Amino acid sequence: METKMPPRGINLRSEQLGLLAGLEHELSIDPKIGDMLTKIEKNPDIDILDDSQKRNVLLIKKQYVEQISLPENLVKETARQRILTINKWKKAKAAKDFSILKKDLEKLTELKLEAARILKDVKKTDTIYDALIDIYEPKMPSRLISTIFSDLKEGLAKLIEKCKSSKSKPGYSILNRKIPVSLQRKISIQLARFLEYDIDSETAGGRIDETEHPFTSGYYDDVRVTTHYYEKKFISSIFSVLHECGHAIYEQNLNKSWIYQPIGAFCSLGFHESQSRFVENIIGRSREFWSYMLPRVSRLDPILHDIEIDDFYSAINTVKPSKIRIEADEVTYSLHVIIRFEIERDLMEGKITTSDLPEVWNQKYNEYLDVQIENDTEGVMQDTHWPSGAYGYFPTYALGNIYSGQILACLFREVPQWKNHISNGDFHTIKEWLTRKVYSLGNLNDPLVLLRKITDDEINVDHYLKYLNDKYSKLYGF
Amino acid sequence: METKMPPRGINLRSEQLGLLAGLEHELSIDPKIGDMLTKIEKNPDIDILDDSQKRNVLLIKKQYVEQISLPENLVKETARQRILTINKWKKAKAAKDFSILKKDLEKLTELKLEAARILKDVKKTDTIYDALIDIYEPKMPSRLISTIFSDLKEGLAKLIEKCKSSKSKPGYSILNRKIPVSLQRKISIQLARFLEYDIDSETAGGRIDETEHPFTSGYYDDVRVTTHYYEKKFISSIFSVLHECGHAIYEQNLNKSWIYQPIGAFCSLGFHESQSRFVENIIGRSREFWSYMLPRVSRLDPILHDIEIDDFYSAINTVKPSKIRIEADEVTYSLHVIIRFEIERDLMEGKITTSDLPEVWNQKYNEYLDVQIENDTEGVMQDTHWPSGAYGYFPTYALGNIYSGQILACLFREVPQWKNHISNGDFHTIKEWLTRKVYSLGNLNDPLVLLRKITDDEINVDHYLKYLNDKYSKLYGF
Repeated sequence: METKMPPRGINLRSEQLGLLAGLEHELSIDPKIGDMLTKIEKNPDIDILDDSQKRNVLLIKKQYVEQISLPENLVKETARQRILTINKWKKAKAAKDFSILKKDLEKLTELKLEAARILKDVKKTDTIYDALIDIYEPKMPSRLISTIFSDLKEGLAKLIEKCKSSKSKPGYSILNRKIPVSLQRKISIQLARFLEYDIDSETAGGRIDETEHPFTSGYYDDVRVTTHYYEKKFISSIFSVLHECGHAIYEQNLNKSWIYQPIGAFCSLGFHESQSRFVENIIGRSREFWSYMLPRVSRLDPILHDIEIDDFYSAINTVKPSKIRIEADEVTYSLHVIIRFEIERDLMEGKITTSDLPEVWNQKYNEYLDVQIENDTEGVMQDTHWPSGAYGYFPTYALGNIYSGQILACLFREVPQWKNHISNGDFHTIKEWLTRKVYSLGNLNDPLVLLRKITDDEINVDHYLKYLNDKYSKLYGF
Repeated sequence: METKMPPRGINLRSEQLGLLAGLEHELSIDPKIGDMLTKIEKNPDIDILDDSQKRNVLLIKKQYVEQISLPENLVKETARQRILTINKWKKAKAAKDFSILKKDLEKLTELKLEAARILKDVKKTDTIYDALIDIYEPKMPSRLISTIFSDLKEGLAKLIEKCKSSKSKPGYSILNRKIPVSLQRKISIQLARFLEYDIDSETAGGRIDETEHPFTSGYYDDVRVTTHYYEKKFISSIFSVLHECGHAIYEQNLNKSWIYQPIGAFCSLGFHESQSRFVENIIGRSREFWSYMLPRVSRLDPILHDIEIDDFYSAINTVKPSKIRIEADEVTYSLHVIIRFEIERDLMEGKITTSDLPEVWNQKYNEYLDVQIENDTEGVMQDTHWPSGAYGYFPTYALGNIYSGQILACLFREVPQWKNHISNGDFHTIKEWLTRKVYSLGNLNDPLVLLRKITDDEINVDHYLKYLNDKYSKLYGF
């Protein structure tokens, strides 16, 4: 649909997807599931089940209980309102006019709140917002997120201040060089090869296509990523390919013996993001990676011959507060997410209304990032998440960063030579380690439990902030 | 799956397709369907239904009765044996050794015969072979096919003899010219544009991709075709694109108000083939078409500048008996099909066995086409149909030719200037006519009834033979 569908096919495809969603919902609320769950729970021999079987039962029950708790009408009305709101968002964004979107967003938000109120009781979460976060990041209370995001915000603010007041300013003019799309495609293949994301052999389990917005889809032996090539912004595709390949490697290395079981899926969106951002930033924006990769990439075309590793490494790590989340650098990125988290938390708790969104947004961008939002298209309407009703999704992006920092600290302990592996072009060792620690465990644990098992530690922002400070103090000389 | 899937995805995809086939079968035998059909039939007000509604009921009943008549075991065993036999066929074909395939083909044939015996009673067809043909070409008795194929065989034999003994032999050396794939892709776009098969506008409902074997898939607003580009055989893609676009236009112009109703589908495989071969041969191998298209195609690249219309027109219409059906010219093609029809008819009637296939095949190729088959890979094992269990499918190919000839005669009466339209680059008028006569009627009629409605005539080979004789007598000067 996203890569190849003829434009006129969209209505037909929407109908087909609607039908499938309806069938899926119908199957998911089949009373037979409830009967079986009751039988299992009442069975005196329940302790025969091993941990993974128990986890499967728990995950099936969780989904079933949630699904049957939501009234049919609410599910249908939400699905309908979602489509309407997304369409209005597209129009409002094009017209730079939030008022076009407001009414429909209000309705959709009301419906999501109604669902959240029901889910709060069913899941017994602290707040109704927690009930929504739980869909994407299970058992992750907003109160805990507030605490760690507050630490992160403080740490990032200090770091950004240091970069700003530093005298050494990395130049990034080389990034403005015009690079033909055909050459960028070749670079993508090199990146994929480094990550052992096989796209061109006879046993390939992946491929790279092109779409407006990059994404990853599929699992196990068929995991495909997409990217977008901009002739005048060639690093955009480099980092989106690295990011999506990070997602792809996770899906390809799930435990194959658990296929189609609930435990056979990934842990959480936050964990998925921890892996994509690990590959994109911790590996992909490291000096070791480019010391290996730059000579190989340069060889592809004379247009790249004169790029020096020092210049390139500085350029791709320039810290510069900006308006658009998906274009943000590694350091300021999490602040974009924290702003969204704080806003949607207050919205869900009734402290602000849909009408307040633009003003609150602009004020926070001013306060946290020192950026002036001039219109809502580059402000509150930049992302599709809220018009799609995905409240509770945003925090997973910054949680992913925090997880990635803790996982990195663990990698330092267990594979002390990991940087040498990278500069020698060997990602295999690290991938094996990540497979053992993260990928192969699938959804056997809730994210905070998995994090504890991997790192022997509770969630905290220290490791991620240390990683950033170590890296950027060298880059900016403070 | 065919155009983009990473190779390693095949097992996963097979499992998914198997699951869907199982779900589809389950739904198709749901007793609720039977209950509703009974209620409709017993309803005293049944005459309220208009013709199209009655046809829907009839088609639903036909499918339901067939589905429930086949024992679950037989369906599953056939599906399993089918996969095994296709795999053996691939091996046997590679090894040029029919004995590798024989045993599994025998088993599959037995299973198809068992199904055919049951379906013969349910459908009340004359023979068990008729019950299989009916799956692809409803209400088309093998006895009738035997009669008309016998007429066709006689007519074609005479025509081939005349071409053979003619002194004027068209040369086809220009067809051996090496044409880069990139240029062939541009030619495809020109062909699609002529046929108003939109692949590149913002409201496109089609696209052209590349696969080992060309095919068409989809309906209404999303109909996609594939082709295969051979650098050293550039007309291969030209005629496969024309052929597949003929299929595609049919699907795009079905009656949209009948979408998802049984009458909203195409009439029969024979009728589908009549449309693809109409576009490929009657239009696509006509002098008028190339007098319009050749200058436009030549303009694309200097490598094509020196091709003269007379030479090209003769070359693409060379009559030359050959071993491989899908490479056959317009005149000899139907003989390949008639051979297959006669063989499978005798096999289904028990007059020959699976072991006899190679010998019978080679003997008929010798007799009908004066061709010596040297190994079974270029003989009885060339097509996938029998190893896939698709007995009864082959006759639809030649029936399509016969229908196309009768439809052409009707076009001559109703749009006498049709050739002028083509040489002026106007296919639109003919497409509108075909839409009115064929496409928009969907599956409202069985094929012989539709043919009668279009042509006011019974099925006969005279028009098709007249078309061929008129064309080739000029080309070969007899």
